[in-house]
Amino acid sequence: MRDRLLIFSCRAAKELALKIAGVLRKDLAEHELIQFSNENMKVRILENVREADVFIVQTSAPPLHDGIMEMLIMIDAVKHASARRVTAVLPYYPYTRSDKKDEPRISITARLMADLIAAAGADRVLTMNLHSPQIQGFFKIPADQLDAAPIMCDYLRRKDLANTVIVAPDAGSAKRAGSYATRLDLPLAILDKRRSADDESPEVLAVIGDVEGKTALVIDDEISTGGSLQETVSALRRLGAEKVYAACVHPVLCGKAIDRINDATLEELIITDTVPTGDKRNHLRNLTVLSVSQLFAEAIRSINQGESVSSLFR
Amino acid sequence: MRDRLLIFSCRAAKELALKIAGVLRKDLAEHELIQFSNENMKVRILENVREADVFIVQTSAPPLHDGIMEMLIMIDAVKHASARRVTAVLPYYPYTRSDKKDEPRISITARLMADLIAAAGADRVLTMNLHSPQIQGFFKIPADQLDAAPIMCDYLRRKDLANTVIVAPDAGSAKRAGSYATRLDLPLAILDKRRSADDESPEVLAVIGDVEGKTALVIDDEISTGGSLQETVSALRRLGAEKVYAACVHPVLCGKAIDRINDATLEELIITDTVPTGDKRNHLRNLTVLSVSQLFAEAIRSINQGESVSSLFR
Amino acid sequence: MRDRLLIFSCRAAKELALKIAGVLRKDLAEHELIQFSNENMKVRILENVREADVFIVQTSAPPLHDGIMEMLIMIDAVKHASARRVTAVLPYYPYTRSDKKDEPRISITARLMADLIAAAGADRVLTMNLHSPQIQGFFKIPADQLDAAPIMCDYLRRKDLANTVIVAPDAGSAKRAGSYATRLDLPLAILDKRRSADDESPEVLAVIGDVEGKTALVIDDEISTGGSLQETVSALRRLGAEKVYAACVHPVLCGKAIDRINDATLEELIITDTVPTGDKRNHLRNLTVLSVSQLFAEAIRSINQGESVSSLFR
Amino acid sequence: MRDRLLIFSCRAAKELALKIAGVLRKDLAEHELIQFSNENMKVRILENVREADVFIVQTSAPPLHDGIMEMLIMIDAVKHASARRVTAVLPYYPYTRSDKKDEPRISITARLMADLIAAAGADRVLTMNLHSPQIQGFFKIPADQLDAAPIMCDYLRRKDLANTVIVAPDAGSAKRAGSYATRLDLPLAILDKRRSADDESPEVLAVIGDVEGKTALVIDDEISTGGSLQETVSALRRLGAEKVYAACVHPVLCGKAIDRINDATLEELIITDTVPTGDKRNHLRNLTVLSVSQLFAEAIRSINQGESVSSLFR
Amino acid sequence: MRDRLLIFSCRAAKELALKIAGVLRKDLAEHELIQFSNENMKVRILENVREADVFIVQTSAPPLHDGIMEMLIMIDAVKHASARRVTAVLPYYPYTRSDKKDEPRISITARLMADLIAAAGADRVLTMNLHSPQIQGFFKIPADQLDAAPIMCDYLRRKDLANTVIVAPDAGSAKRAGSYATRLDLPLAILDKRRSADDESPEVLAVIGDVEGKTALVIDDEISTGGSLQETVSALRRLGAEKVYAACVHPVLCGKAIDRINDATLEELIITDTVPTGDKRNHLRNLTVLSVSQLFAEAIRSINQGESVSSLFR
Amino acid sequence: MRDRLLIFSCRAAKELALKIAGVLRKDLAEHELIQFSNENMKVRILENVREADVFIVQTSAPPLHDGIMEMLIMIDAVKHASARRVTAVLPYYPYTRSDKKDEPRISITARLMADLIAAAGADRVLTMNLHSPQIQGFFKIPADQLDAAPIMCDYLRRKDLANTVIVAPDAGSAKRAGSYATRLDLPLAILDKRRSADDESPEVLAVIGDVEGKTALVIDDEISTGGSLQETVSALRRLGAEKVYAACVHPVLCGKAIDRINDATLEELIITDTVPTGDKRNHLRNLTVLSVSQLFAEAIRSINQGESVSSLFR
Repeated sequence: MRDRLLIFSCRAAKELALKIAGVLRKDLAEHELIQFSNENMKVRILENVREADVFIVQTSAPPLHDGIMEMLIMIDAVKHASARRVTAVLPYYPYTRSDKKDEPRISITARLMADLIAAAGADRVLTMNLHSPQIQGFFKIPADQLDAAPIMCDYLRRKDLANTVIVAPDAGSAKRAGSYATRLDLPLAILDKRRSADDESPEVLAVIGDVEGKTALVIDDEISTGGSLQETVSALRRLGAEKVYAACVHPVLCGKAIDRINDATLEELIITDTVPTGDKRNHLRNLTVLSVSQLFAEAIRSINQGESVSSLFR
Repeated sequence: MRDRLLIFSCRAAKELALKIAGVLRKDLAEHELIQFSNENMKVRILENVREADVFIVQTSAPPLHDGIMEMLIMIDAVKHASARRVTAVLPYYPYTRSDKKDEPRISITARLMADLIAAAGADRVLTMNLHSPQIQGFFKIPADQLDAAPIMCDYLRRKDLANTVIVAPDAGSAKRAGSYATRLDLPLAILDKRRSADDESPEVLAVIGDVEGKTALVIDDEISTGGSLQETVSALRRLGAEKVYAACVHPVLCGKAIDRINDATLEELIITDTVPTGDKRNHLRNLTVLSVSQLFAEAIRSINQGESVSSLFR
Repeated sequence: MRDRLLIFSCRAAKELALKIAGVLRKDLAEHELIQFSNENMKVRILENVREADVFIVQTSAPPLHDGIMEMLIMIDAVKHASARRVTAVLPYYPYTRSDKKDEPRISITARLMADLIAAAGADRVLTMNLHSPQIQGFFKIPADQLDAAPIMCDYLRRKDLANTVIVAPDAGSAKRAGSYATRLDLPLAILDKRRSADDESPEVLAVIGDVEGKTALVIDDEISTGGSLQETVSALRRLGAEKVYAACVHPVLCGKAIDRINDATLEELIITDTVPTGDKRNHLRNLTVLSVSQLFAEAIRSINQGESVSSLFR
Repeated sequence: MRDRLLIFSCRAAKELALKIAGVLRKDLAEHELIQFSNENMKVRILENVREADVFIVQTSAPPLHDGIMEMLIMIDAVKHASARRVTAVLPYYPYTRSDKKDEPRISITARLMADLIAAAGADRVLTMNLHSPQIQGFFKIPADQLDAAPIMCDYLRRKDLANTVIVAPDAGSAKRAGSYATRLDLPLAILDKRRSADDESPEVLAVIGDVEGKTALVIDDEISTGGSLQETVSALRRLGAEKVYAACVHPVLCGKAIDRINDATLEELIITDTVPTGDKRNHLRNLTVLSVSQLFAEAIRSINQGESVSSLFR
Repeated sequence: MRDRLLIFSCRAAKELALKIAGVLRKDLAEHELIQFSNENMKVRILENVREADVFIVQTSAPPLHDGIMEMLIMIDAVKHASARRVTAVLPYYPYTRSDKKDEPRISITARLMADLIAAAGADRVLTMNLHSPQIQGFFKIPADQLDAAPIMCDYLRRKDLANTVIVAPDAGSAKRAGSYATRLDLPLAILDKRRSADDESPEVLAVIGDVEGKTALVIDDEISTGGSLQETVSALRRLGAEKVYAACVHPVLCGKAIDRINDATLEELIITDTVPTGDKRNHLRNLTVLSVSQLFAEAIRSINQGESVSSLFR
Repeated sequence: MRDRLLIFSCRAAKELALKIAGVLRKDLAEHELIQFSNENMKVRILENVREADVFIVQTSAPPLHDGIMEMLIMIDAVKHASARRVTAVLPYYPYTRSDKKDEPRISITARLMADLIAAAGADRVLTMNLHSPQIQGFFKIPADQLDAAPIMCDYLRRKDLANTVIVAPDAGSAKRAGSYATRLDLPLAILDKRRSADDESPEVLAVIGDVEGKTALVIDDEISTGGSLQETVSALRRLGAEKVYAACVHPVLCGKAIDRINDATLEELIITDTVPTGDKRNHLRNLTVLSVSQLFAEAIRSINQGESVSSLFR
């Protein structure tokens, strides 16, 4: 009844896009990407997209800027090939942490991304767990934001959560952690990190709340270099936490992340597949990966059918 | 050397605009506003504004929507009268709390405001302490955001802060309160508010951190109906706080605010003049009003002169 | 076959919107509007609007600016909830008389309204009897303008129109009155109003044409404070008119309108329901209210079905 | 002090542009226009326009559409050659009578013109006596509208106006004529023209007001084919007017205008030079041409200097 | 299944549009165009176009600028009459040779055309053999470009091409001619034209490649005044070519084209019907006209059906 | 007198930007770029840019897409820091060869680049030798294109050019080579390259024109992998050319370029410094690098001063 649904995947999101397409019992739409030795990319859409409802899946993963340009070029190619609607599907939104001007004369790059995506011709955006919910307002085109918390909490509820405290790694993430505490009906503790001088990285000064003798469940939206998690875990142990779990939606896992996380000896690290982890998965101990493919597949189907998306971030 | 600087004030911001103009040793530029009995407004700009650098000061105060439309009409009139540049000066930004889509099918009205201000013809915006710093990203036109924290902290440092703890009224404001804690080198405590059912207002479950026997200094960006503050203060007393102070930038003071605040028997309530308080000032006990006029005057002068604005929110 | 049709109503237009929906044998689509004590409004759309063809009915009635903002917020909420098309239905267009720059440095606010409605995300506009037909050109988005004249004239033709003269209350409305004169095949007279000094309201100097011993039928697009009508009637009586009728599309009826109209002792005042008159209806003598709901219902159906709208203003 | 002022003239406006430049003691800026035998035009700007304040004068005169395209190409060339500001100066605005949708499915071409002028890159517009003042609202870019009425009235006041009545040729121009009546303190009469069938041209049914034994001064914004004026004059004579004058701002003078006007045996026809009349001037009896060059020169100087334009339409 | 397809034709393209409609077994949609004696045009669309998929066919032919404005007004009328999609069909794109800035301060008028077409409200463009393929990039709206080469080559292959060389009339058209050489598997020769001084027209200096004793087939995208072709043919004869054919897609045929082409005594001139040739056809010797109507009909059907357009320029 | 001129350089263009600044006797404006381990970049502008006339120099060099995003982020940061004007200076424009749709459903990426640069906030562009001059039309913002041909020809004229023929490596570059031939008054030859099957790279079929016993001077706009040049040189030798020189503006030099060029044993390869060549310079035999810094410095000065740019591409 509705416009023909086509799902294209950029390179970095291939693994997740295949799973999404699988849930929808579809093949990925075909295209070809050639990267010349001068690094220029050329995208050839190999299917007729006229009047189709096109979804282009891409995520933020290295090489980051090649991936961003690849997506913009795909959007442009599909749009000028007369697709009726183009939705950029971004499980992990690029530059999501550059969402405010906390220094003078810097770019709010998450906003710039929104402008570039629209300038390339996207009609809408589908993403997940933005660093701050306000980023959704950066889009003039309609933007839907999914939330991985229900998946995470479904999984966590199957564990023994007695004597567990939810931990926010710093004051800025207190609200996010607080929403997990409410969903799981657990107490909340917050680490008080401060910077002694401008050029130093922040240190954990104290914990606000009580972790001694408890199981700590650290909540964060992403895990990047692992530095912050490492420090959080070591502070929690120093403060008497007995066991430490961590649940982070976006597994960026860059720099020394693998070593740091392994060193932190977590009981378990729970992540999703919004970012491809490739071989890293095999080197991380006690890792659990929950898939968001079902959620994205449902959202894409709902958008195409004009139905309500049930898993929206609130 | 620079373009002629003209400052117009809408009705709700008259008191503050006069102070700002005073600091700059200027008169407010003249205009006339007629409100007909069908409520339609007519604005007549009474000065030549061709090629001028025009600043229009307005704030969010009752009657709120009349004030918003008044500002949009002023911007339109000045722009079509060929001002070279129009800056909307909004000490208290309208709909600042509608900055995210925490429910399905609602408007991110703070973003809509940004679009309307730009559609009316404003070239830039100057505002203060947005509810979330990300709102700055809602603007495609350049937007500067001033911060009242330095004024607040200068005032607070003159007090005896021994045995004082900074209190965030909920997890969502932990980051804001944390920045005051860092500036004043004080510990931080956070109230853990939860909603037992969807239709109830949140209740204070516990304090995360330590307030017993201490002086509590509650930090918030605005004080609206006073309900949240009242509850915060009563929870703090219940938890053993000895004295309670509160510092809130924007004094919205609507509904039963006056009674609630007086009932809360604060040692002192510190606010600024971003919102006119009129007669309410006389009915609030232990009130201190700090003026932001100097800050805005300097920012306007800097913008006009093409100099760096030193008091930006970071 | 066509997109799902949903009609929402803002508060001021509720009565008319219900009638329109009734004609179409539909219920109004559901939403919830909360107005906080800081006057901020929050709109929650309670139905799925993805891919729907949405009509939002609002009119200009007190509190005017709350109503305008309510409509803009509704449009924004519905648009970002992925409606395929949003039509703003405005039986009485706001600021319709601010349609030209008859003084320097004023806003053409009817144009600003068009810009704001488009900036909020409306795809088209459906309105009725704009003060000047040129306002339709203020819209870059498609705008349809209905005409109440056929309804008015159908009603008037059922009366005895012998010895009747159509009266334009001033030179500016001669064209509008002239079109009624042509439709009803009656002679035309025009009042010659002039302002002796800039700050005075205009006085009737003379009638151009012949009214002595005749039944005068005054035609206007709106009746606001009743001042102009009162003066018109008294001049007509002074000039020898035997009976006076008046037909005005938009019953704004603000200020002292009720008293003035009753004082004018009209034979009959004929209005429509583009503006809600509420209790005022009961206080006006010799009042006839013709409904435009049938016209709007047909137009909405035609727009949804992609058919020609037969009742357009010509 | 201000940006370098350059005035270019398109071909149709050359005569007026030279006069305007003369008043400003400047030469017209140089450019070259080549029209190839395939009718394509090529414009070469022969002066450096970087950062200059450029005014491009064009009017509506045959060949009309060549003239419109010539102006659009000029604007584009000057804008991309990096002029700081481009003002389209249009003494007689093209398609000024296509300002409303009085039939279904027609173009409001005056609005389309505004869009095209802006799309070509103009930053502002300067024009005179639009057919309806609302057209000014068609422009998103600032638009100034001059009024020839003061020039006309200055000239008319030098005549003997005793026993004179201002005549509006139809109901639609009653307002315009009324403003002359007020300025000159004279009575007003209006011709009542009606169309008996859809495909016929309107006939004068009657005069509303009194012209018998009087000197009639017909006021119109433009004189096009002369058909309307001819009919107006003959009706006035039939109704007993002793002498007939006519004052029309824009002398379009197309079709059989010359013969018809001469046949009408006016006492005097007063026009301006917003449209070039060329040789026609010599064939019209009793013609007076008032120049608007002084007004335009002052307006251009004011715009360039950022001063108030004193001769705006009100 | 798809939106109702309507084809309108502007005056200059009537002949071709009728053929296109014929292929699609449709009538042209009806409209009426009135040109007043002041040259203003008025377009009345006589069919309901709401939600329809409208194609407006126009080409570049004298009177050129009337034709351009006619098309823009048609687009505007159809768009504001609520067509769902408007495609401007331009077999011969206006100002196609003004595609670069080869002199300072000139307009890239082909780009301006793209902006004007989009500003008038077109949603897409369908054209053929642009002077340079890059012009397609001037459009932000989707633009499809058809290629007449397959039609030309199909026709040419039916001839005896032994001993034939493809000739590019200058270095700038070497690539276009080269693509014909490849398609027909023939050798290529290029004329080396140079300008001895700035104000002279270029002269043929030499041929690069071999034409002596051969049949020369000159390839060009358009034939305008015939001057270039005349000179090319005379140079080819001087250089020993035995026979000369020419194939040019767009038959502009202006100025002295007829005489020059006849003087050149070509074996055959092959053109298409993208530009109407009217009576000129009868005055040209050895003329073959190939129709592009089939190609355009297929493209229009494909666009309407959302299918791939098979005859695109590559 | 003019706005303060500031020149920033992105990383890839540092060497050239320093030379340009040196010619203007200025330092590069200061900024800091941090690249995090998740590849996100953060740009901090370290100078006040309010009301300044900012030039941001960037070129296309590996890592290409990091460089593009770096430039877009710089533009965004500078624009939102209230620069009066931002000019993107791109000596070698990214994706310059993706300037047409020579296959279905591909992106005209050079056009997308123009859109992205404008979306990020650039007010104008300054570039050099675009692959096709039409690309300039992709920009809605003013774009200036410099030409290296005068520098190249000045250098070449100092050599002995007797018995020299200019060689275009394929039909598509015949026009560019032809313009060198005209400037240097030399004959022209063109290589006829054809593709035997779709998936093969083109082969040199023949030379059009005469190279035997001559010195060949190959002209191209860029030298990328060297493959085309290698093949051109080997064909020229096979065809009897005695010596081969090559002049290419943009030294991309990627893939096996160094080896291929050295293998080709050119008498001399002449390039410019629009792309940094770094260490490659030392590995290329017979290399001459001409600097375009003087040209860019003059153009920047002219743009800032509002003067005519004398070295524009024509």
